[in-house]
Amino acid sequence: MKILYSNEANFKDEFSLLVDRSNIDMQSVMPIVNGIINDIKERGDAALNEQIAKFDKWEVNGNLAITTDEMKTAYDNLDDKLRNALKLAYERIKAYHEKQVEKSWIDFEPSGAILGQKVTPVDRAGLYIPGGKAAYPSSLIMNAVPAIVAGVKEIVVCTPAVGGEVNSLLLAAMHLLGIKTAYKVGGASAVAAMAYGTQTIKKVDVITGPGNIFVATAKKMVYGDVNIDMIAGPSEIGVIADESANPTHIAIDLLSQAEHDEIASSFLITFSAEFANKVNDEIQRLLPNLKRYEIAKASIDNKAAIIVTSDIDECIELMNALAVEHLEIATDNAYEYLPRIKHAGAIFLGHYTPEAIGDYLAGPNHTLPTGGSARFFSPLSVSNFIKKSSIISMNKRAIDEIGSACMALADTEGLEAHKLSVEFRM
Amino acid sequence: MKILYSNEANFKDEFSLLVDRSNIDMQSVMPIVNGIINDIKERGDAALNEQIAKFDKWEVNGNLAITTDEMKTAYDNLDDKLRNALKLAYERIKAYHEKQVEKSWIDFEPSGAILGQKVTPVDRAGLYIPGGKAAYPSSLIMNAVPAIVAGVKEIVVCTPAVGGEVNSLLLAAMHLLGIKTAYKVGGASAVAAMAYGTQTIKKVDVITGPGNIFVATAKKMVYGDVNIDMIAGPSEIGVIADESANPTHIAIDLLSQAEHDEIASSFLITFSAEFANKVNDEIQRLLPNLKRYEIAKASIDNKAAIIVTSDIDECIELMNALAVEHLEIATDNAYEYLPRIKHAGAIFLGHYTPEAIGDYLAGPNHTLPTGGSARFFSPLSVSNFIKKSSIISMNKRAIDEIGSACMALADTEGLEAHKLSVEFRM
Repeated sequence: MKILYSNEANFKDEFSLLVDRSNIDMQSVMPIVNGIINDIKERGDAALNEQIAKFDKWEVNGNLAITTDEMKTAYDNLDDKLRNALKLAYERIKAYHEKQVEKSWIDFEPSGAILGQKVTPVDRAGLYIPGGKAAYPSSLIMNAVPAIVAGVKEIVVCTPAVGGEVNSLLLAAMHLLGIKTAYKVGGASAVAAMAYGTQTIKKVDVITGPGNIFVATAKKMVYGDVNIDMIAGPSEIGVIADESANPTHIAIDLLSQAEHDEIASSFLITFSAEFANKVNDEIQRLLPNLKRYEIAKASIDNKAAIIVTSDIDECIELMNALAVEHLEIATDNAYEYLPRIKHAGAIFLGHYTPEAIGDYLAGPNHTLPTGGSARFFSPLSVSNFIKKSSIISMNKRAIDEIGSACMALADTEGLEAHKLSVEFRM
Repeated sequence: MKILYSNEANFKDEFSLLVDRSNIDMQSVMPIVNGIINDIKERGDAALNEQIAKFDKWEVNGNLAITTDEMKTAYDNLDDKLRNALKLAYERIKAYHEKQVEKSWIDFEPSGAILGQKVTPVDRAGLYIPGGKAAYPSSLIMNAVPAIVAGVKEIVVCTPAVGGEVNSLLLAAMHLLGIKTAYKVGGASAVAAMAYGTQTIKKVDVITGPGNIFVATAKKMVYGDVNIDMIAGPSEIGVIADESANPTHIAIDLLSQAEHDEIASSFLITFSAEFANKVNDEIQRLLPNLKRYEIAKASIDNKAAIIVTSDIDECIELMNALAVEHLEIATDNAYEYLPRIKHAGAIFLGHYTPEAIGDYLAGPNHTLPTGGSARFFSPLSVSNFIKKSSIISMNKRAIDEIGSACMALADTEGLEAHKLSVEFRM
């Protein structure tokens, strides 16, 4: 694993390559995605069925919908241990997201005027869940729970069914979550169908969920016609650790990110060169035995780095510059550094908080901003499934008090009817 | 003004045209905007200066920045009435937005595990403010205040200066708001420069603000590399009123929207045909005398409608389907209907709440979702300028309690290192 030292001459250049790691190149796939979207807009189900035959290799023949019976059967067939694990995950994630619920509020002015903000769930949410090898029930739970907690009445799930088959764990998770509407369709086709509607699939208001470059591009293209959660890239971890941490634990945490994807990134930033070497040794020791060795090795070789700094302050400064998706602070006094962490999707504190616990059932969402977008994006949350309306209620006294200032501003902007609409009421 | 009756045979078709009123066609301008963005990404200031010479017809020659002296001079030269009106607007808008501030929180589990959410302002925000005739100081106040209240340290304003001149009211508002960094550049060039940075303009994290189709398209194209507020189209109002309302007031409210733009939309929905006719008469009476007659007339003739329904329930149902930017409920018991309003950018209640009061100084933001996007977008707010990080802090007892469920889930998803990262700590 590459080790960089912050006091070396070329460090700044090497580090800036890590900062600029996000390169979701949508330009090349945009024409294809645009074609898929326009075709579905124009021809609806007919286009959708053709695209499924082409990309997922099965004939729909009216079997686009997943039945609730299929979901229940899959759930009943789970072994007890797994069913209980899914239930625990659901309960813990639900409990956390319930703390995010925002209330409508109003406030009062001395004049009796009332100002406020109304919170309303969106009518319909569309959850995109990848299929095939990467069919993760955890993705479904993480996308569905905030929508459920937000109070969304109609939730629809789309997931690809290569050859017509859906992963049984996904089906089981649908039953657990009470999903009633789900379709076997993936990729840009699913995003387009949910954004614009077809004869079978109703148009939704918000689309969330992970996916490949085609899904990400489609989400960006439909943004504005619907809302979306974020544009996500490959997963990543950053660890700040000192000699109080167990090097084996840190090594396996870095590997847990690397095993996701050849282009997943893992960073360790520490001020101890000795600790850096220990972790590196552990990675070399653990890596060959992993079932996903090939993937993890490619990620560690090409996308990972250990950075040795002069002190903890520099560790924090560099980690803020990276703005990683998952950040572990594996030190004895992790909370001490929390106020200074500005940019990270999720922050894992202390020696007993492996990143994996957040992937499954700690409670917070595992859909997190990647590639440095933690500078401006937030974890998926209840707020992705609600929207707000301002509330304004004046009365005669209020309009008399502030009306003339309003008229002066309308006047200076040359908007006469605006001015008159106030004047008429004074 | 067109009057539709909901009991007529072709009403459903006519109404669906109003629902589908949003048609921001970005396809045609996308190649131009793409060229502008790529040029600025590659050549920075050199490209920016050329674009300004081409579109805004002046030579930059190192004078891209607006100085704080220019801002102060403009502010000092304001007449007292206008200065006080701007100050009142600023104070009231600031007071409202301060109520939107979200706190970081943590919560505790019986095991001693800690879960929470950290709220952090973005480092840098870029505000785009249109120039020329539509240079509205109110737009600057509405965009800057939520960023200021969010605690954003670096706020940059971009506004076009046709011929090199900036509207003095905008300059004055910059001084009032304490803006330190502002540049004379508009359109897609400004959005690209703020999104990717040039030698002069620092890259920002969030871009907000209104603009024409080029600005809207540029914002959509840079979305993901930065965050943006929303994609906004022409302004619009919907009014639900009954015979308790003053028809002259309702007529001028509809006209206040129409005077914005030939393609602004105004809708009145009422169950009283008599009231509908009275409002229509008032519009015909007031319209010819307006300074912005041509614009308002085009809007009223082509983009406005009065809809007569059978009862108040149908008024609410149709208004929810329109999901308008500004919604007035001009009835005696306006609050009674508030719970049933699902989709609207801002809701104006009662007989003394003209929409214009919300444009300038009621307090809530005037940047609101248009074209039906109130189904899923919210008013511009403090939350556009912050982002969140999840906080997760386990301990030995917590990991012992939930670790095996986590391992079962990691196992079923085939992620061995995830499983081991938990197992090693148990």
